[in-house]
Amino acid sequence: MPEHLPDHVPDPLTVAELSESQLLERIFPRLHYGQAHNPSLILGPGDDAAIVAAPDGRTVLSIDTQVVDQDFRLEWNNGYRTTGYDVGWKAAAQNLSDINAMGARATSLVVSLTMPPGTRVAWVEDFADGISAGIRELGAPGCAVAGGDLGRGRELAVSVAILGTLDGHAPVLRSGARPGDTLALAGTLGRAAAGLALLESAVPVGDLSRDQRDLVDTQCRPLPPLAAGPLARDCGATAMLDISDGLVRDGNRLAAASHVMLNLDASVLKVLAGPLRPAADLLRTDPLDWVLGGGEDHGLLATFPPGVQLPHGFTALGSVEALAPTDSTGVTIAGRPADTVGWDHFAD
Amino acid sequence: MPEHLPDHVPDPLTVAELSESQLLERIFPRLHYGQAHNPSLILGPGDDAAIVAAPDGRTVLSIDTQVVDQDFRLEWNNGYRTTGYDVGWKAAAQNLSDINAMGARATSLVVSLTMPPGTRVAWVEDFADGISAGIRELGAPGCAVAGGDLGRGRELAVSVAILGTLDGHAPVLRSGARPGDTLALAGTLGRAAAGLALLESAVPVGDLSRDQRDLVDTQCRPLPPLAAGPLARDCGATAMLDISDGLVRDGNRLAAASHVMLNLDASVLKVLAGPLRPAADLLRTDPLDWVLGGGEDHGLLATFPPGVQLPHGFTALGSVEALAPTDSTGVTIAGRPADTVGWDHFAD
Repeated sequence: MPEHLPDHVPDPLTVAELSESQLLERIFPRLHYGQAHNPSLILGPGDDAAIVAAPDGRTVLSIDTQVVDQDFRLEWNNGYRTTGYDVGWKAAAQNLSDINAMGARATSLVVSLTMPPGTRVAWVEDFADGISAGIRELGAPGCAVAGGDLGRGRELAVSVAILGTLDGHAPVLRSGARPGDTLALAGTLGRAAAGLALLESAVPVGDLSRDQRDLVDTQCRPLPPLAAGPLARDCGATAMLDISDGLVRDGNRLAAASHVMLNLDASVLKVLAGPLRPAADLLRTDPLDWVLGGGEDHGLLATFPPGVQLPHGFTALGSVEALAPTDSTGVTIAGRPADTVGWDHFAD
Repeated sequence: MPEHLPDHVPDPLTVAELSESQLLERIFPRLHYGQAHNPSLILGPGDDAAIVAAPDGRTVLSIDTQVVDQDFRLEWNNGYRTTGYDVGWKAAAQNLSDINAMGARATSLVVSLTMPPGTRVAWVEDFADGISAGIRELGAPGCAVAGGDLGRGRELAVSVAILGTLDGHAPVLRSGARPGDTLALAGTLGRAAAGLALLESAVPVGDLSRDQRDLVDTQCRPLPPLAAGPLARDCGATAMLDISDGLVRDGNRLAAASHVMLNLDASVLKVLAGPLRPAADLLRTDPLDWVLGGGEDHGLLATFPPGVQLPHGFTALGSVEALAPTDSTGVTIAGRPADTVGWDHFAD
């Protein structure tokens, strides 16, 4: 995907030079919110609040914020410049992933964008394009941008709140995993972390291979597997969550909520780490660290009852095991605790 | 209302010293989110998303952000220190008001709090108390805190997204005012602006009279009339919005959406300005500026068909008039344009 704001086409207009309504006029046409395309949007932007359909009488709801220099950098160590498109895409993707992880589909989102006065209007337009493209290209065309809020601040920040529907089905919670279930993964693991490491490295972005550049793209514009959440729900998934903070950390959360142990299959982890090895070799690190500790790919970790064929897009990753009376919940790899020390030991 | 963090009871613990889960453990008990008290909360915090009831198959949705030094100061010119309680209350109040302005009632909200690492944990606890107190004391006990997001940033910022239900009724939009309708107000006007002027003045907060201190309180902890929105809807209001940016600016928005002129009654404006005169005299300004230009009381501006008795809590403020073919929409005072020049002329 090209940079949308190349440096050789400067547009010096900043948000400080426009009123909020002038800025909204530039943004609205770029947002994927038309009622014609989104039957779930009963009332769109322009009033004190929007109105969104909740066909089964329930709404799934989440909120997530990205702040510059905490969640992304405008210019990375390797020279890559984060575009408005990247930030918009990622804001959409990580919120869509939270709805996906419940087994739901997104119906709408609202965006609050806080900007320093020197922010270029072209950046904000690019941001709006990124939100729309994320929604469309990730496969959530029923998700309308229902409204939002523009404001000023010293630092750039984006909050997105998102709504979804379960279409009459039960949600898939973190707490339903049972001993004997199969642990499975949809989406990728470790690619966004590898991309982050490349962005923070001294290797100039222009020197990266195509594969390495794809890793950077996964960090900047993640690809959550949005079909997988509702599909897992339909196939009887017993528990599920979005891997946003890393397999071990998020696995620990699922294990704690379900009061079980998750045991990862070492051979599968090695298979996942394989494609990351060239980038890891370049940075003199172990790709398993990315697989076990890296978040932001926004894959799904789910558990399925014994004997259930895993739905399309899921790969077996291990098993759910009962807690011994004295054990605390957690994640093991081939039976050994998967804490940081464990990774080092495992990384032979 | 007392300050909740008096300087003589320091608690030096900062958010940087706690993990996110430790901080959440301190916040959750303070939030008004129990499913027992909120039948609309089907699934509360702890999973990837919450689930909220939408009994009539629709959800009303809005988002609003407050940023330090844009929307409030932690320490004001007159010495007043904004408490976490204030910020939490105001975040709840301004979002509840957006739902109120649609003629709806709030069912849930989610909170995203961005904090510098040096933020005191006691401040965050106070913030949580302020959200809960705002919901409860403003009269929205059915509004659950359904979840949220804690993160770091260089500047303090709060985003709240809120959901509401219309309980099967039609919403009251900005676009329904018709010539001949009565223009009416619920709640107060100009008090929060007077409070802001006092906060920014050189008059020490300790020297303020009880009445002046009440104006400061309206700025810091606004009192939107939450019963008035659904009541106006039931009584046939044709248009409505939340006065957050001032009577003239918000009146212009309603007029534009409805394609009408709003004519304000000069004698009513003088009555509204009367109680603000002592503070205005102290600051050598005109209280009508606060009545016409001041936002943040979060009163409601509504229009009712001719002959309808105004519901409890509403005061007639003027009339809705037809546009002459060459007129643009807008607000007049006794027939004269209510732009800034107009106020000066009017302020005799």
